[in-house]
Amino acid sequence: MNATRIPVDIPGRGYEVTIGGGLLGQAGPLLARFAPTGRAVVITDAAVGALYGGKVVAELERAGLRADLLDFPAGEKHKNLATYVSLMGRLLGLAPAIDRSTLIVTLGGGVAGDVGGFVAATALRGLGSVNLPTTLLADVDAAVGGKTGVDAPAGKNLIGAFHQPRAVLIDPAALATLPVAQLVNGLAECVKHAVIADESLLEFIEANAAGLLAADVELCHQLIARNVAIKAGVVAVDERESSGRRELLNFGHTIGHAVETAAGYAGVSHGQAVALGMSAACAIATGRGLLTPAAAARVAAVLAAVKLPARFDDLPGLPAAARDAAVLRELMLHDKKARAGVVRFVLPRGLGSAAVFDDVTGAEIARALEKLAG
Amino acid sequence: MNATRIPVDIPGRGYEVTIGGGLLGQAGPLLARFAPTGRAVVITDAAVGALYGGKVVAELERAGLRADLLDFPAGEKHKNLATYVSLMGRLLGLAPAIDRSTLIVTLGGGVAGDVGGFVAATALRGLGSVNLPTTLLADVDAAVGGKTGVDAPAGKNLIGAFHQPRAVLIDPAALATLPVAQLVNGLAECVKHAVIADESLLEFIEANAAGLLAADVELCHQLIARNVAIKAGVVAVDERESSGRRELLNFGHTIGHAVETAAGYAGVSHGQAVALGMSAACAIATGRGLLTPAAAARVAAVLAAVKLPARFDDLPGLPAAARDAAVLRELMLHDKKARAGVVRFVLPRGLGSAAVFDDVTGAEIARALEKLAG
Repeated sequence: MNATRIPVDIPGRGYEVTIGGGLLGQAGPLLARFAPTGRAVVITDAAVGALYGGKVVAELERAGLRADLLDFPAGEKHKNLATYVSLMGRLLGLAPAIDRSTLIVTLGGGVAGDVGGFVAATALRGLGSVNLPTTLLADVDAAVGGKTGVDAPAGKNLIGAFHQPRAVLIDPAALATLPVAQLVNGLAECVKHAVIADESLLEFIEANAAGLLAADVELCHQLIARNVAIKAGVVAVDERESSGRRELLNFGHTIGHAVETAAGYAGVSHGQAVALGMSAACAIATGRGLLTPAAAARVAAVLAAVKLPARFDDLPGLPAAARDAAVLRELMLHDKKARAGVVRFVLPRGLGSAAVFDDVTGAEIARALEKLAG
Repeated sequence: MNATRIPVDIPGRGYEVTIGGGLLGQAGPLLARFAPTGRAVVITDAAVGALYGGKVVAELERAGLRADLLDFPAGEKHKNLATYVSLMGRLLGLAPAIDRSTLIVTLGGGVAGDVGGFVAATALRGLGSVNLPTTLLADVDAAVGGKTGVDAPAGKNLIGAFHQPRAVLIDPAALATLPVAQLVNGLAECVKHAVIADESLLEFIEANAAGLLAADVELCHQLIARNVAIKAGVVAVDERESSGRRELLNFGHTIGHAVETAAGYAGVSHGQAVALGMSAACAIATGRGLLTPAAAARVAAVLAAVKLPARFDDLPGLPAAARDAAVLRELMLHDKKARAGVVRFVLPRGLGSAAVFDDVTGAEIARALEKLAG
């Protein structure tokens, strides 16, 4: 197997991300390294469990581990405390009982990684975990960096913990079973990484859009490796979002989160919402002279190339509330990343660079939203 | 106010424990330091809330903070995920919404600190917290060191996180409202600290037993300061129980936890169970020549001086299962601190020193339990 290894150099909690086509079918020995007493519990959603659960458990057993599998119903709506409580009850009820050397293996998309990671973070005050992401979004975003948690009625990801995994194993071949809409979802975060940190990645996505949307294993391998390297670099210097560096990953998310929330998470995917948010942020940056109109147009072209929306009208199913400037502004003020009523924006400064701004005015936001509406 | 300040030097997460008679009525300015945007939420149980909740909220408001109070029913049986879910829902439902600069203030005994600390650890992936313990057990043990969490049906403290507070404020005058049985409960942990780390503390407890049991503020102040210093020293070098140093705090707890669990937490307090566990561990240490019979007798005398049991018969209400050697041994094997079926024991090596042993035999445990039964 042609594998790429990328270190995540967080002081005292460093780990390695391994990317390789077919890795899911060869994960046993890699996982066994992190289960010193030979016990592992796989946490996955029912849909991914049906596809890959048996394979991963078999791999663990082939490597000499005792492996249990706990699943929960698929879907973001199950990323909640009820699922957490159910999984925790089943985990702690396993016989023989788990101990502190038991390894948690999260398998699936962002929801499985987030919920499973939160269980790992809080069972016996913290168990080691390895993430096996199976969606592009999870590969390039959720699986690396240690954010775990669940949603609350008041908002997404309001409950959780920072808990770095011991390793992340990514199999680009798993993307072949993914609906194209899910690939598009992940590509939004790739465009985000490109705009804030690596202009050449923007070229790569633009040049290979068709192959990426077809889940070409080699192209996806390269894409994932480049994006994981960017994410790893950011979290290595700012694990807990305290220095501002990690906050750059929020590019497109200020307005994006508001759109998702206003839509009730219907009629718009996370990636689509982030794409709209990135377009709006580029418009604000252009208005401030931080970004040339040509650069903003290039971002728009890449988004279009990977089937992401640039305007509200590109999403016919988007509820009216999610286009309502007053609704969106109110939601932005109450985002958990807002501080004392100040909305924070990540704006590009040229392509491949960005910074956080807390002085974006209501008028600037309104103009940017008008562009999305126009 | 005559205050004592003790640093907890955990790298990157250090904080200070302040001890002072009357501190609860002067806590506002100290708390305000940790609430940069002027927002605090007090988490307490209903019993402590009735005694001190209004005072602490008034103190916060006097210091210019907006303060909410969330309470939950008093008692260890409410230290569970249902209480956690309820508190989290109420916290995230507050209007205006909390943000990452909101301070959590835990007020009460170990349960309030553990549950409130776990809420702080996991709301918005981690809020700052300050602990205001109101029992001797919480003062000298739970409030310092960052262990937070709740119990599960399968056992105590199986769910939780390490989350260091920003500060701990201890008011020895609060002990005046505490039933004597609760003081005794805390004194067990003080004897534990003395045996593993400070022989002169054993002398202090023995010489001042009557005054301590009467909750004399000055004596309790000294007692708390000496014990917090020991606990702080241990957690500073081994925050997450990884080097073995923090595991020394488990002295008396291997058998103690088993006794509590076997009893169904009825007929025996935590401190009483730990006292039995310490007597048993001293017997094992004496059998191994690690402790002289005279030193073991001295520990027994101090336990008796502060009304703690040395034998099962000292606890008439103790259920039969909690005296059953086979039941206790089975529970020890499944303690979360056991590793792959090996029971770990902290044994004193002389007075004021201890070490972890994983080679204590079933026969040694059986002999020690016989001594408790005799």
